[in-house]
Amino acid sequence: MDVKKLTEEDIKLNLSKLNDWEIKDKKLHKLFKFKTFNQAFSFMTGVAMVCEKINHHPEWSNVYGNVDVYLTTHRVAGITELDFKLAQEMDVIARSP
Amino acid sequence: MDVKKLTEEDIKLNLSKLNDWEIKDKKLHKLFKFKTFNQAFSFMTGVAMVCEKINHHPEWSNVYGNVDVYLTTHRVAGITELDFKLAQEMDVIARSP
Amino acid sequence: MDVKKLTEEDIKLNLSKLNDWEIKDKKLHKLFKFKTFNQAFSFMTGVAMVCEKINHHPEWSNVYGNVDVYLTTHRVAGITELDFKLAQEMDVIARSP
Amino acid sequence: MDVKKLTEEDIKLNLSKLNDWEIKDKKLHKLFKFKTFNQAFSFMTGVAMVCEKINHHPEWSNVYGNVDVYLTTHRVAGITELDFKLAQEMDVIARSP
Repeated sequence: MDVKKLTEEDIKLNLSKLNDWEIKDKKLHKLFKFKTFNQAFSFMTGVAMVCEKINHHPEWSNVYGNVDVYLTTHRVAGITELDFKLAQEMDVIARSP
Repeated sequence: MDVKKLTEEDIKLNLSKLNDWEIKDKKLHKLFKFKTFNQAFSFMTGVAMVCEKINHHPEWSNVYGNVDVYLTTHRVAGITELDFKLAQEMDVIARSP
Repeated sequence: MDVKKLTEEDIKLNLSKLNDWEIKDKKLHKLFKFKTFNQAFSFMTGVAMVCEKINHHPEWSNVYGNVDVYLTTHRVAGITELDFKLAQEMDVIARSP
Repeated sequence: MDVKKLTEEDIKLNLSKLNDWEIKDKKLHKLFKFKTFNQAFSFMTGVAMVCEKINHHPEWSNVYGNVDVYLTTHRVAGITELDFKLAQEMDVIARSP
């Protein structure tokens, strides 16, 4: 996995392939909304397993059915392929099973 | 929640309203199959929260994407409404979000 | 569970029985610190099950080993016994098993 | 991680370094006992994250506070270093935080 800081152009290109992700506070951001806390936390559990697998972790907060996610790669102080990888996995988990 | 032991007739009626549940070893049984361990364990997490909420817990085993569930109510040595309640909730969680 | 808004005096008394909780932004607040994401998220899972059981949920955020928790009871726009109940359960879970 | 099938001698040596694990049905076996379902399932969540990280998964069942674990490596039809690695991680998680 490439962890070099992406250029603005790369970021735009990658964003165009995702749903509802945006750049906010220089981080990759999305607010996931579920109907229940149960659904929100089951989603978070699926994501947590991916995070440990790829050794990359989000800044995220939860209030009832909402899960607010910010992704960035601290060691390069920017957004990398790793962030887009995690974003994509989160979208898959949010839709499954 | 009524915890009186259901009659065979009640059990048949309740089973007819569920998908793919059966009686096995005198317990309410279903094998849930998911494609990945991630999906199986996210499902189990959703179920675990329901179990604590209704204070009723399954006998269940997991191997990779499979979750094998047996439900019974020990204090009446039989199947009760509580088991069907949990079975129904499991089906909802398996289909969501 | 009593959900009447607690007086400042009640809050002080309850706070004195807990470890490291404080009032911040008019909410009951504590920052839990774990060494690993694995520990932090396992803790969150234990808490999530309690939340569904008592039907009371936190505002919480997680970054790696840190879990930052704010508790309040929206329907009374203040802090109640329910918040202290959840705070206490969180402390128990953070220390176990 | 070495995934060659271990000899009986290797297995004995590795077993001597672990607590309460044994060979049962030709698999590495341990029964973890917790006081509550909450503790058992929080433990399972911690383990699930490790499983995804190392891409190795148990055969395990849960009834309330009990988590019964069998480890084996299917592709070599035997016990490998990977099983002992997971066993060791489970022991660490069972004791933490």
